[in-house]
Amino acid sequence: MVEATALFRNAAGIDTAISILKQRFGDRLQTGASVREQHGHTTTWIENQSPDAVVFPNSTEEVSDIVKTCAAHKVPVIPFGTGTSLEGHVNAPAGGVCIDLGQMNRVLAVNEGDLDCVVQPGVTREDLNTHLRDKGLFFPIDPGANASLGGMAATRASGTNAVRYGTMKDNVLSLEAVMPDGKIIRTGHRAKKSSAGYDLTRLLIGAEGTLGIITELTLKLHGIPEAITSARCSFPTVDAACQAVMTTIQFGVPVARIELLDAMSVKAANAYSGLKLPETPLLLLEFHGSAAGAAEQAETFGEIAEDFGGTGFVATASTEERSKLWQARHDMYWASLQLRPGARGISTDVCVPISRLAECVTKAQDKAAELDLLAPVVGHVGDGNFHTLVLIDMDDADEVARASQFVGWLNDLAISMDGTCTGEHGIGQGKKPYLVRELGDATRYMAAIKAALDPDNIMNPGKIV
Amino acid sequence: MVEATALFRNAAGIDTAISILKQRFGDRLQTGASVREQHGHTTTWIENQSPDAVVFPNSTEEVSDIVKTCAAHKVPVIPFGTGTSLEGHVNAPAGGVCIDLGQMNRVLAVNEGDLDCVVQPGVTREDLNTHLRDKGLFFPIDPGANASLGGMAATRASGTNAVRYGTMKDNVLSLEAVMPDGKIIRTGHRAKKSSAGYDLTRLLIGAEGTLGIITELTLKLHGIPEAITSARCSFPTVDAACQAVMTTIQFGVPVARIELLDAMSVKAANAYSGLKLPETPLLLLEFHGSAAGAAEQAETFGEIAEDFGGTGFVATASTEERSKLWQARHDMYWASLQLRPGARGISTDVCVPISRLAECVTKAQDKAAELDLLAPVVGHVGDGNFHTLVLIDMDDADEVARASQFVGWLNDLAISMDGTCTGEHGIGQGKKPYLVRELGDATRYMAAIKAALDPDNIMNPGKIV
Repeated sequence: MVEATALFRNAAGIDTAISILKQRFGDRLQTGASVREQHGHTTTWIENQSPDAVVFPNSTEEVSDIVKTCAAHKVPVIPFGTGTSLEGHVNAPAGGVCIDLGQMNRVLAVNEGDLDCVVQPGVTREDLNTHLRDKGLFFPIDPGANASLGGMAATRASGTNAVRYGTMKDNVLSLEAVMPDGKIIRTGHRAKKSSAGYDLTRLLIGAEGTLGIITELTLKLHGIPEAITSARCSFPTVDAACQAVMTTIQFGVPVARIELLDAMSVKAANAYSGLKLPETPLLLLEFHGSAAGAAEQAETFGEIAEDFGGTGFVATASTEERSKLWQARHDMYWASLQLRPGARGISTDVCVPISRLAECVTKAQDKAAELDLLAPVVGHVGDGNFHTLVLIDMDDADEVARASQFVGWLNDLAISMDGTCTGEHGIGQGKKPYLVRELGDATRYMAAIKAALDPDNIMNPGKIV
Repeated sequence: MVEATALFRNAAGIDTAISILKQRFGDRLQTGASVREQHGHTTTWIENQSPDAVVFPNSTEEVSDIVKTCAAHKVPVIPFGTGTSLEGHVNAPAGGVCIDLGQMNRVLAVNEGDLDCVVQPGVTREDLNTHLRDKGLFFPIDPGANASLGGMAATRASGTNAVRYGTMKDNVLSLEAVMPDGKIIRTGHRAKKSSAGYDLTRLLIGAEGTLGIITELTLKLHGIPEAITSARCSFPTVDAACQAVMTTIQFGVPVARIELLDAMSVKAANAYSGLKLPETPLLLLEFHGSAAGAAEQAETFGEIAEDFGGTGFVATASTEERSKLWQARHDMYWASLQLRPGARGISTDVCVPISRLAECVTKAQDKAAELDLLAPVVGHVGDGNFHTLVLIDMDDADEVARASQFVGWLNDLAISMDGTCTGEHGIGQGKKPYLVRELGDATRYMAAIKAALDPDNIMNPGKIV
């Protein structure tokens, strides 16, 4: 366990607020230990800090009422989507009330002509895509977990196809939010672009619930591509794979996904999924377009890959073959855990300019070996973003300490390479020290904004600033 | 002339700050009437409000020193790029010091492998593209005027190819800025994506210099497309043209530019450029891709256009033919002015969901006719964004009043259609009342952010909030 920071706990205010909210919400407010613990952070090595109560609102007005009650008594409010965040985002270091938005899970409108939709924050990305399928539309952001769209916006999530479709910041048109004083605002409407005032949409995206609670999202949608071609290619080194990717992007090939698996990841995939891939760095790709266009993109990549020593290039437009081709990636998390049964897998996340990616990955591999850690690498290589899954025996204090040292060292390495300590996981509690190292004085203005909008520090305290 | 709002003028502070800055900057600080007037707002009907002095710094450190001096004496600071903004952005309603960033015009780095570059704020978009041409790269945002990149970021500019490449908010990776207390910050580095803390990059983009002065930009670049195909097609109605556009986008055709000219604009183009186009709504398009891909996109559009009554469809991949095909659009501003020689052309800007665009344009045409105004329409129709160029006799007070009524009515119409009062020009002084009508209580949080970062309201006062 890594200890989370404790903050001042306003016990009297919390008791008062909970008793008021209990009267209003009845069984929709719960204080049982297991519910509270489920709503504290549990997915990584940061210790659980449970809220004092969990409330399940059905509407924006109910969220507003909860926040007003908590504001009146200076009680922390922690928004909760599906709990799949990775840096202690939903922990309650000063206690308080967790607002579980899971019951606000309706798709409110789909505007096919405008390629947009309006959803409540508890809708998950898979639910949305199921809802959209018959209309030939999809929402592209795929962070792996079946996260809620409110949570994905709050953490500025992205994932495998950000290289083509961007991140949450690029795919949210506007938001409705409940602010720290309980007021409900809209940050914009449905215009595709706007120059009207400060970009509060982008300010709330990535604010991790520290400036307001997202209660409605207007999202950009995309047409399901006419054709998808998938491809796979092995490379002698991470550097060769990265060179091929850079060249492909420079050529203007609008690749939809490019995932890198390092040799250790490929080895894990071979063992877990019964594959026979060469145990060298592997790229998995996906191209979207017309049938001819997607095939042409794959072909261009294949030619470039050859120039950089790529071998075993295969491409397919068949859905069934595609799943097989990508199986190594789909099984990656479970395959990696099987490298060391019983170990906890701690995923960390950095992002660097793509020209530095090979060097960053290679140094990370060397450092992990030096510290005697198993840490397979998977990367969204088109964005220069990669994860190491450090496989840790959580009962071995020395190993936990070495893993912590590794993660910190990697954050600093990425920052030293003109990169960032987090490409998509967010700051939460876990990355706070690195945010200051990355952005220096800029964090003082973040703190000033936080203090101006939330003077009593009730909105998800202890995160980011 | 439309009168701009006056603010309190700190005459003593201004005198003191200017005398201190004069010692430091010598001839690089100017107080002559004509220089001052050039640096107030002059391009539309908002009256000129000149600064008291104009200073020409060469470095971020000099900008920081100027801001520190002005902050110490509570003197307004107005950043200036090329002065092509349209809503009174560079006016000095409380006097103060204009910082002309035109001498900070160096391209500091081009990172070809990463498709990014680092520039000073005074670099214009044309200068940057000239610099990049040999490398096969370009920066796509094209607001028409040869604006400075700092100014384009400050106003969240976009233009004709935003439908494919996005706006400034999508094409700036990070910024360096001088904050209201004179401190220099970086909002990020060169990673393609980041989830590290509040998005200060996007907060400064579109803040129109009211929260800080942009002193360096890290920009995304794109490969010059292998092939460009241009096309042109006439339609019986604006609605038919918009339906064709919507269908094309839903088909997933990654069109790079789609410009709409209404019948009056086509008539103006015929007269000015000696063309013989049917005087009905016209779409001009551009497709980027591989030679086969761009041609396939144009062909798909041609088929869709036919379904909606499109006539006279032509497409070409030749550079020379392209210029001819687009000539009506290139000459549009001057052609429109020739509809009424001697009149001033006032460009206004709204943006609505594309499904409402035809209705919005048609209502605007009817309203202009009702008010006896000449107001040709040009639209970035893929984004639902359009401009009317109201042709006004500025000596006719009644006509100016009717034009002002028209612009206000149009802003309100766009807002009522889930749109925005400005898609790309910004708020400045001219659109302040509409910002409040569009976003209501959200503007109070904008004001709170402004007050927190700039408590003495010295940064470009009187704009946005």
